[in-house]
Order: sequence, then C-alpha cells, then structure tokens
Amino acid sequence: MRIAIASDHAAFDLKAELRDYLIGLGHEVADLGPVTPDRVDYPDYGYKLADVVAAGTAEFGVALCGSGIGIAIAVNRHPALRCAQVAEPYSARLAREHNNANAIALGARLIGADMAKACLDAFLAAQFQGGRHAGRVDKLTHPTC
Amino acid sequence: MRIAIASDHAAFDLKAELRDYLIGLGHEVADLGPVTPDRVDYPDYGYKLADVVAAGTAEFGVALCGSGIGIAIAVNRHPALRCAQVAEPYSARLAREHNNANAIALGARLIGADMAKACLDAFLAAQFQGGRHAGRVDKLTHPTC
Repeated sequence: MRIAIASDHAAFDLKAELRDYLIGLGHEVADLGPVTPDRVDYPDYGYKLADVVAAGTAEFGVALCGSGIGIAIAVNRHPALRCAQVAEPYSARLAREHNNANAIALGARLIGADMAKACLDAFLAAQFQGGRHAGRVDKLTHPTC
Repeated sequence: MRIAIASDHAAFDLKAELRDYLIGLGHEVADLGPVTPDRVDYPDYGYKLADVVAAGTAEFGVALCGSGIGIAIAVNRHPALRCAQVAEPYSARLAREHNNANAIALGARLIGADMAKACLDAFLAAQFQGGRHAGRVDKLTHPTC
C-alpha cells in the first residue's frame, strides 16, 4: 500500500521507527516530514498529510504528535479524511471496520513504539464493513455543520 | 458550566448517566439527543453538538458513540471545534492543556461509565496552558487544507 506519514517534533523519532517498520512490511511510504527534530506546529503537518491522502497520492495516512489529539483534529478538518486517534489495536480495527478511516493518529508520548506498530497492523489488516456504516461515513464526507 | 451532550444509539445509556452526573456536579447540561434508543447516524448528532458549542450556547461538548471515533470526526469538521477522542483521564487533561479542546469524545463500547466520568472530571478541571500551544490552536481554527 501507499502510506503517507507525518508528525511534529514530539513524534519525530516514532515517525522514523514507524516509517522503517512500514517499509519493512513492503509498503511504499512517503515521509512528509519534518526532516529535523526542531519544533514545528502539528497543524501544518496534519494538513499536509490530509492533502496527500485526499489527492489519492497515498491510500492511508499516519499522523503523529505528542498525544495524537492535535494532529487528528487537523487531519479531520479535511472532509475527505477520516482520522482515528487510537491508543490500542481494537480501536484501530474498529476505525477501519465502522468508520472507513483513511488515517490513524498516534501519540508518541502516550504509547510505546511496539503498541504503535500493533495499532498500525490492526488498522491495515481490517476492512470497511459497509452496510449500515456506509451512509454514516457518507455523511462525514458531506458535513452539514 | 454550560455543557452540551449528544450521542448515537450505541451510547444512549451512557449519555443519560453522564448527563445526570454532570447535572449532579452543578453544571447546566443541554441533552441534544437522541431521545430514544432507536438507531441513528452519529454524524447528525456530532454536527448538532458542534453547532451548539460553536454558537457559544454551550462552553463544552460531550460527544458519545460506540467507539467515540466516528462522532469525534464529525465534531471536528467544524473549524471552531477541537474534539479529543480519549479513553483515559491523562489524555483528557492534555486535550485541554495543549489543544484547548472544547469537546471530548468517548466510546460507550470501549470504556465503562466510571472511566468516562474520570475523563470528564480531568477534562473539566484542566486549563489551557496557552504559550507555545496558542499559535497551534489558532492554526486549527483556520485550516489551510
């Protein structure tokens, strides 16, 4: 799969580890930065990731910051993105199965690298279930607020 | 505080329990529905909640669905909302301190009622720290994607 990954400074090291992990699994990974561990603003990287997934250049996005909360908000500003902030694999699976999530947000200061990898594994292995979930996902793509 | 709460059918019972809990703490709570446990679509209630918080009618929003993921995405479609999907109190606190979150999303099928209450307690007790976080929060209000 084509996967884009982006972070802020707090998740800079985790980004490198998850990027290499995904490449090792055979995925094509676009690292959208940052390229140094200097302080940055997570919204800038969340928006960049959203644009790349929305354009179809990547099928999935991996968004990382200290808690995962801020960058998930940024990614979800884009109506074509459905980003799930998760801390364990079950939620990562549900995000794909029920919400057809096309991005996952993880918090580098909240979970360890192995848990993050387990979340990615669960996310990438799961399939959207469609059915009653499809109409709800469609409403996320056409916000009324 | 003035707090709005909304859910889907999966979180209907949790909504009632958290509403009563918040009222018991002395808050003014607007229950935005649903009013029956019949199946509904979480985006409809997420958008309703976002509108109420964005209008200033409520200071904070509590968004509930099965996992918390779907309704958090819906709430975050609104540029004035910053909704954190959390499963434990530390993330709930960080969401206020770093992201100035004005909504919290909880998953009725993932955490129990007491954990949900502990998340609310942590969320409501915390204060936005401003400083270096302020510029980032401002970028969430003015998305560039």
